[in-house]
Amino acid sequence: MREPILLTPGPLTTSLRTKTAMLTDWGSWDARFNVLTASVCADLLAIAHAEAEHVCVPLQGSGTFAVEAAIGNLVPRDGKLLVLVNGAYGKRMARLTEVIGRQVAVYETADDVPAQPAEVAARLAADPAITHVGVIHCETSTGILNPLAEIAQVVAAAGRKLIIDAMSAFGALDVDARTLPFDALIASSNKCLEGVPGMGFVIVRRSALLQSAGNSHSLSMDLHDQYQYMQKTGQWRFTPPTHVVAAFREAIDQYLEEGGQPARLARYSANCQALIAGMQALGLKLFLQPELQAPIIVTFHAPAHPAYEFKRFYEAVRARGFVLYPGKLTEVETFRVGCIGAIDAAEIKQAVAAVADALNELGWAR
Amino acid sequence: MREPILLTPGPLTTSLRTKTAMLTDWGSWDARFNVLTASVCADLLAIAHAEAEHVCVPLQGSGTFAVEAAIGNLVPRDGKLLVLVNGAYGKRMARLTEVIGRQVAVYETADDVPAQPAEVAARLAADPAITHVGVIHCETSTGILNPLAEIAQVVAAAGRKLIIDAMSAFGALDVDARTLPFDALIASSNKCLEGVPGMGFVIVRRSALLQSAGNSHSLSMDLHDQYQYMQKTGQWRFTPPTHVVAAFREAIDQYLEEGGQPARLARYSANCQALIAGMQALGLKLFLQPELQAPIIVTFHAPAHPAYEFKRFYEAVRARGFVLYPGKLTEVETFRVGCIGAIDAAEIKQAVAAVADALNELGWAR
Repeated sequence: MREPILLTPGPLTTSLRTKTAMLTDWGSWDARFNVLTASVCADLLAIAHAEAEHVCVPLQGSGTFAVEAAIGNLVPRDGKLLVLVNGAYGKRMARLTEVIGRQVAVYETADDVPAQPAEVAARLAADPAITHVGVIHCETSTGILNPLAEIAQVVAAAGRKLIIDAMSAFGALDVDARTLPFDALIASSNKCLEGVPGMGFVIVRRSALLQSAGNSHSLSMDLHDQYQYMQKTGQWRFTPPTHVVAAFREAIDQYLEEGGQPARLARYSANCQALIAGMQALGLKLFLQPELQAPIIVTFHAPAHPAYEFKRFYEAVRARGFVLYPGKLTEVETFRVGCIGAIDAAEIKQAVAAVADALNELGWAR
Repeated sequence: MREPILLTPGPLTTSLRTKTAMLTDWGSWDARFNVLTASVCADLLAIAHAEAEHVCVPLQGSGTFAVEAAIGNLVPRDGKLLVLVNGAYGKRMARLTEVIGRQVAVYETADDVPAQPAEVAARLAADPAITHVGVIHCETSTGILNPLAEIAQVVAAAGRKLIIDAMSAFGALDVDARTLPFDALIASSNKCLEGVPGMGFVIVRRSALLQSAGNSHSLSMDLHDQYQYMQKTGQWRFTPPTHVVAAFREAIDQYLEEGGQPARLARYSANCQALIAGMQALGLKLFLQPELQAPIIVTFHAPAHPAYEFKRFYEAVRARGFVLYPGKLTEVETFRVGCIGAIDAAEIKQAVAAVADALNELGWAR
């Protein structure tokens, strides 16, 4: 049987060309590898239109490591972060901020309600101790889109700094540093840019990074140190995930060949539409209001059958070649389906057919 | 031209079979991936003969991330770590301990002098605040071997806990938890086990790990949390480097097929002997006394020619298919050659021939 297609928010299905780039061993000290790293960082910066005032600092580990690094560097030890929460990743950002010993305030909305810019403004006005605001662009817990541009304006108007967890959306949803003010934007290799997992990166305002010397709570996650060392030597401070970086380079090449952000967004939007139309035809209901839905990952209510169990559903669909993703909500039974990765509407339609077949076999079809 | 062979302390040359394991995408939530992770951890524990009292916790990132995580978890916030330093990795351990806000004391010997167990005992007797001792098994800066077994006995006799950075040696040099007491041993995927870089792991005494709840200075590096979550779900807390884990599984399979630690040590020892004999025949001198030399990476004095420059030497050898490693000593001009990776004495002899040819071309031959 063919390897299953991953309909997940990453690790996701990557192209064979991307994976094949991992068949070479690279010396981490070698000049050719330094060129590879520099070219990846330059392209990531360009995708965010952030060449003028920002730099891109890569970091080993998962995306969360990079989020923690950004907060640990940019929020000074006496700073305070207001985190906008409407799902697990917002909660995680608040928790890691606490763990690393920074003050944190939380503005929480329900899982299906975006952060409201006016309320952010009110919270900033009410608490002058807040120095930074953290927001999740697309909250993968549900797939909800937060109004990033409006939030960025409100934060800037209040003279505070914005830290964006753009993990699941970067490369597909447009973020333009020329018009959207932020101090840091964090994402990883294995989401909409369709690389393999193993590294994150922070697109960070150069002046803020340079001021952050000595802030970091961790040596491994010291972005300032990583940046300075890389500027001086071209190398990562500590052993880089060389194969992951090489695959990322190849994935970005394909991204650019496809037409960059507009083309990636168009493909994912078509995937998302095909998915929603197909699943609705099977009687499966969207969790979010359609206008709040980012074309990244879609949350569906579980089939309304008393015998429903996610595990059985998952295995039945997997046996048909598709890997779904569990729900992440505590109060409602849901499951999730990713629209991202090296797939297009053809695979999405096959997946919908697999779901239909699985539901029939399980006796859970409407 | 063939891809160059990496004669480095990692990332190193891996087998094609190991790299080919990265041609599959894995769902990080999928039960099959959980089995993969669990089997890797079980085998790592067995390699250290540590099944009785320890567990293996993997961590995303480079080996240094895992060292920092081990210290941040095991050394309590009011604890104190005595670090035995005779090179850059010992210095790094001391520095990261300071950065994360733990007290640190340093016992430093020259680059070519191993830590002396009697001196460790004296320092422990003199400073009752010291709770833990950190040691580098094979200090990659030079390739020097520290007397691990003797140090472990001294630390245990003083009622303190041992943290071993075994990064560059684990899998080749024997470490047997049944006779060598330690609380944590840290290594990574891309050294003597011949996987690709992107993850580290900590073999940690279960009781010490369970007592460490709340110690960690970092959420991403919280080993206790990673362990508890993995026990409960089989999954990594945050996105794992799936392809790296799959390659590591394949690399460990080959390790076991080869005959495990004794066979790996025998191959590397033969590599090391062939290297030293060949280089000495070219007039290149060992930096360390031969009895202090681990068969992992060898430091040579630079060719004694006034025009010598490492960069030119490196490129000339690289053009012949071999990647050397720079020296890491500040007072003596040296270079390093790794003995580890998916290579045997045949490649080492080819490398020596390449060095000879390069030196002739550069006019630096003796």
